[in-house]
Amino acid sequence: MVNVQMVNDQINVQMVNDQIVNKVRLFLTDVDGCLTDGGMFYSADGETLKRFCVYDGMGMVCLEQAGIPCGILTSENSPVVKARAEKLKLSFLYLGVGSRVNPYCQTKLRAAQEICDRLDITLDEVCFVGDDINDIDLLRAVGFPCCPPNARPEVKALTRAAGAKNDIHILATPGGQGAIREIADQILSQTGKLQG
Amino acid sequence: MVNVQMVNDQINVQMVNDQIVNKVRLFLTDVDGCLTDGGMFYSADGETLKRFCVYDGMGMVCLEQAGIPCGILTSENSPVVKARAEKLKLSFLYLGVGSRVNPYCQTKLRAAQEICDRLDITLDEVCFVGDDINDIDLLRAVGFPCCPPNARPEVKALTRAAGAKNDIHILATPGGQGAIREIADQILSQTGKLQG
Amino acid sequence: MVNVQMVNDQINVQMVNDQIVNKVRLFLTDVDGCLTDGGMFYSADGETLKRFCVYDGMGMVCLEQAGIPCGILTSENSPVVKARAEKLKLSFLYLGVGSRVNPYCQTKLRAAQEICDRLDITLDEVCFVGDDINDIDLLRAVGFPCCPPNARPEVKALTRAAGAKNDIHILATPGGQGAIREIADQILSQTGKLQG
Amino acid sequence: MVNVQMVNDQINVQMVNDQIVNKVRLFLTDVDGCLTDGGMFYSADGETLKRFCVYDGMGMVCLEQAGIPCGILTSENSPVVKARAEKLKLSFLYLGVGSRVNPYCQTKLRAAQEICDRLDITLDEVCFVGDDINDIDLLRAVGFPCCPPNARPEVKALTRAAGAKNDIHILATPGGQGAIREIADQILSQTGKLQG
Repeated sequence: MVNVQMVNDQINVQMVNDQIVNKVRLFLTDVDGCLTDGGMFYSADGETLKRFCVYDGMGMVCLEQAGIPCGILTSENSPVVKARAEKLKLSFLYLGVGSRVNPYCQTKLRAAQEICDRLDITLDEVCFVGDDINDIDLLRAVGFPCCPPNARPEVKALTRAAGAKNDIHILATPGGQGAIREIADQILSQTGKLQG
Repeated sequence: MVNVQMVNDQINVQMVNDQIVNKVRLFLTDVDGCLTDGGMFYSADGETLKRFCVYDGMGMVCLEQAGIPCGILTSENSPVVKARAEKLKLSFLYLGVGSRVNPYCQTKLRAAQEICDRLDITLDEVCFVGDDINDIDLLRAVGFPCCPPNARPEVKALTRAAGAKNDIHILATPGGQGAIREIADQILSQTGKLQG
Repeated sequence: MVNVQMVNDQINVQMVNDQIVNKVRLFLTDVDGCLTDGGMFYSADGETLKRFCVYDGMGMVCLEQAGIPCGILTSENSPVVKARAEKLKLSFLYLGVGSRVNPYCQTKLRAAQEICDRLDITLDEVCFVGDDINDIDLLRAVGFPCCPPNARPEVKALTRAAGAKNDIHILATPGGQGAIREIADQILSQTGKLQG
Repeated sequence: MVNVQMVNDQINVQMVNDQIVNKVRLFLTDVDGCLTDGGMFYSADGETLKRFCVYDGMGMVCLEQAGIPCGILTSENSPVVKARAEKLKLSFLYLGVGSRVNPYCQTKLRAAQEICDRLDITLDEVCFVGDDINDIDLLRAVGFPCCPPNARPEVKALTRAAGAKNDIHILATPGGQGAIREIADQILSQTGKLQG
C-alpha cells in the first residue's frame, strides 16, 4: 500500500523546491569536490593542477547567458581557479574566503551576502553548491542549497527541521563529472531557458 | 511473450544502421567528453593537459589505414588537441569551430560540409561522435550519428522521428575509455578491414 | 538462525576498537595508496605529480586542531609529498624511510617509535594507515591499525590471532577518495571534537 | 547438475597454467593499458605524463629480487616510460618496438626472442602482459600470456584452440590499478617467494 501522506509530503517538498529554483537569481559554487572530484594534483611546487569538467563549464556559461550571474567561492588562494573562472568569464570570483582551519569564520556567507547586496537580491534567491563543513553556514542561509553526492555526511544532512533555510538538494552527479551542469540545466529548464 | 513487432523493429533499426556503417567514408569526432572523459586539467596558465586514451588513437590510425579519413572538430583553439591530432597523423583538424557561447551557430556543421565537399562525399556518408548541445546540429545532419553514454540527455534523445537524419547510436564505452575505438572497430568490422 | 557467539564476538571487537580510538594520541599515514589512489604521474623527469584529496587534507587539519598531531611516513624521498605536508602544516614528515626493495628493514616502525618517544606516548596510542607489505611491521605494532579497501591482501588479513597488536580496521573509503578523512572523523567523533 | 567434464577441463587448464607459472623465468609487459589505464596526458608538447601504479612497481621490484628479470616492451619511443623503468631498475627496456601503424610487424616478438637468447631461455618460460592487437603475436608465442580485463576483445579471445601457445589468462585487476602486481604475486606465490 502506498503511504499517501508520504507521497504528498514529497510533492510538497518538490513544489517548494521548484518555486525556489524559479526565482534563482545568482548561482554560486565551491571548487574542490564540486567543480572537481576533490583531487588536488601536487608537484614539488605545491598544487599545480585541478581537473575541471567540460559539462560544468557549459552549464555556467549558459546560466550567464540566461541572465543568471555565476560565482566561485573558495577558501584557497588558487591561481588555477582564477584561470578557470576567467576562461568561463564568470561574474564573480572570491579566492581565499573562509578557512579550512576554522570552518566557523563564516566568510563564505559574508562573501555571498556582499554579492547579494551588489545585485540588490537576497540570499533566498541564491543557489549555492558546497560539499564540506566550511560550506555549511552558507548552505544553511541560501534559498536553494545543493551538494554533490560525494559531499560530507554533515552537509548531506542539512534540513529545515534543523534550522536551515531549506532542505539540501543532493545532486545525482558527482563533483567533477557534471554536478554543476545538472543543477544549471534544472534552473534553466524551470526558467524556460534551457537550450538543446 | 515476446513482442514480435518490437523485435522486428529492432532488427530493422539495426539493419538500417548496418547499411549506413557500410558506407562510412569520413569519421569525425568532438574532443571533450568523446576523446576524453570531459576532464580539463588547468594550471595557473589555463588548460594545460588533456587525458586521451590509447585505444582511441589505435582506432583512428586503423581507420586511416583502411582508407577512411578521420578528423577532429572542436570549439576550443587548443594546442593540446593539435598535438594529439599530429601524433596520430589525422587527415583533418578544425580548432575553434562553433562556440560554447552560441550552440546554434552551426559551424561544426559547416566544417563537416566543407570537408565533405573536398572529399566529394555527402553528410550521409559521415560518422560523427558528439556529446553536448553544440554538437546537435551536425549530429542531426550526418548519416551515422554517435555519442558516448556520458553525453548530455538532449544528445542521447536525437531521433529521426524528431527530424534527425538518423537515430543516434549510443556507444557502450564512455568517452576517454575507448568510445571512439568501439565505433572504429564496428566500422572496420563491417567493411571487412578489422585487424586482429 | 543467528549465530549468537558470532554476534557477541563482533560486539566485543567493536568495543575494543572504540576504546582504542578513544586514546589515539598520534595519527600516522603512508602516502601512495592511502593519501592517493596509488597513481604516480611520471614525466620524462620521473614522478612529477601526485593526486591528493581535499577531504583528507581537511581531516588531518581537524585532527591537528583537536590536539592530535599527524605525520606522514613514506619510503620515497619525494618533494611532492613534502609540498603537501607543508601546505597542511602537519607535525611530522619522514621521507625515504623503509625501502620498497627490502620490506623487512622496519624503518617505518623505527620512525614511529622515534615520534612516540618525542611525544612520550606508546605505539598503543598510535593510529597508522598503510596499504602494502612494507607497512606491515608498523601496522602489527600500533594500537589502531587501518588500511583502505584497496590495500594488498596481506595487509587486509592482519589479525591479533596472527600476532598483531590489534585486528586491522579496513576503511570503507578508497585511498585518494577520503580514506584518511573517514578515520579522522571517526577519531574526532569519539573524542567529541568532530566539527559540523 | 554439475557438468563433470567441464569441471575437469577447468581443473586441467588451471593445472597447466600452474605448471607454466612455476617455470616463469622472464616477465615482460606492454605499457599503455597494462601499466596504465590507457590514459595519455597530452600538453601542447605532446604526451607529457603517464599515470603508473605504485602496486605494479612493487610487484616488478619483488620479481627482480626473486631472480625473475622484468622488461617493458612498448611501440612508443617514450622518455616517460624510460623514467619509470629506470626508477624501478628493471632489467630490460625496449622502446619504439613494433608499430601502431602495422600491428603485424612482429617486432615485440623479435624483442622478446632477443631477450630470451641473451638469458638462454625459451619463450615457453616467458610471462607477457599485453592488451591490444599489436601485442597479439607475442601473446600467442609465450608460455604464459596475460591481459588485463580492459584488453581489446581480440586479445581476450586468444586460445590454444586457435593456435596460441596457451590460453590467455585474463587478470582480475584493470591496467593501472595493479594488474601487473596481481600476476607478479601469483608468480612469486607459486615459486614460494611471495613476501608479506
